[in-house]
Amino acid sequence: MKVKNNIILALDVMDMDEAINICDKVSNQIDTIKIGYPLTLAVGINCINTLKDQFDFKVICDYKVADIDATNDKIADITYSNGADGLICHGFTGEDSVKACLNKADEYGKDLFLLTEMSHPGAKRFIQPVADDIARMGVDLGIKNYVAPATRLDRLQEIRNIVGEDAFIISPGVGAQGGSAKETLKISDAAIVGRSIYQSDDPEKAVHDILNK
Amino acid sequence: MKVKNNIILALDVMDMDEAINICDKVSNQIDTIKIGYPLTLAVGINCINTLKDQFDFKVICDYKVADIDATNDKIADITYSNGADGLICHGFTGEDSVKACLNKADEYGKDLFLLTEMSHPGAKRFIQPVADDIARMGVDLGIKNYVAPATRLDRLQEIRNIVGEDAFIISPGVGAQGGSAKETLKISDAAIVGRSIYQSDDPEKAVHDILNK
Repeated sequence: MKVKNNIILALDVMDMDEAINICDKVSNQIDTIKIGYPLTLAVGINCINTLKDQFDFKVICDYKVADIDATNDKIADITYSNGADGLICHGFTGEDSVKACLNKADEYGKDLFLLTEMSHPGAKRFIQPVADDIARMGVDLGIKNYVAPATRLDRLQEIRNIVGEDAFIISPGVGAQGGSAKETLKISDAAIVGRSIYQSDDPEKAVHDILNK
Repeated sequence: MKVKNNIILALDVMDMDEAINICDKVSNQIDTIKIGYPLTLAVGINCINTLKDQFDFKVICDYKVADIDATNDKIADITYSNGADGLICHGFTGEDSVKACLNKADEYGKDLFLLTEMSHPGAKRFIQPVADDIARMGVDLGIKNYVAPATRLDRLQEIRNIVGEDAFIISPGVGAQGGSAKETLKISDAAIVGRSIYQSDDPEKAVHDILNK
């Protein structure tokens, strides 16, 4: 995936008018957005194509898909068939669950992103101890795209070491959560940023500022 | 939650007409259904209220919610505000993520179900080793409702031992996946069954047969 300015906008809102207002403000600096279930459930899955049609964005659906293989297959099918360019799935549900999403991505010629690690406090207990194993499972499955947080650069580097230089890593946690885009992008391919761009009065300057600190 | 005949119907379809046809067939035997993201994404989240209005069902949304706390909060809010009586969340994402869903359930006076274990092949690698810990976390959080699979009764019993006799356990894996409802219901409070009921020509007989083997 090619991401303009190496920044993906996290469109964490739940109202379509608000989403479109934000996209209007940032569409000169941003060409790739990440949406989640809150927006999708609130306004319907056709929001993906609405945003793509209106702004020519690439849309990554951060659904953190985490079901059995048969259900993951259905979720991935609906998501890609409704226009998603990328879909994020969890790895902790295991190989068959992830493979179901990957097969669907291949069928549609779209991208699957494997979430290797999370950095919220609760992730310490069950996810962080197996994050490296999840990344290794992704490599074994031939996955090319990963999500790994920007909040701890040593961990991000470790994930990079596991998935290899050719893999494409996108990183949340830049901006409000404290990660530096400049440092993150030495390891990651794109930083995921939300409010610090779209709550700015000058999104162009905000993107410039984020890229330089 | 009170579940008629101790059987919850897993409505694993992706079309509203098909969903309604199935519900028409089973509504004498069943008063609680479980829907997932495939149906919700395909037809929109108002499917919850449509099914409740038309059949007076209780609806459990099996979204296996697995995000950070702020996002889980939003997903739970949309789900309960659209009529869900129950919501299933993963425990793997940790205490803060689960707590966000639980707080929302309490706010709406609805039920949160914690998924403690899964039985698909991929679950062996990351989920099964921590299933007991996830159940213990649920107990520490004061969670009253759990999902634990019927396919291995020794494991189901172990989860019951952890969560206690007063907890309400619902169990998938009965019927097509091999679990016995009769044996499962000695440990669980309700069995989740799909095709073996709604693909039957005689759902009443199917429910009777399931309850007796």
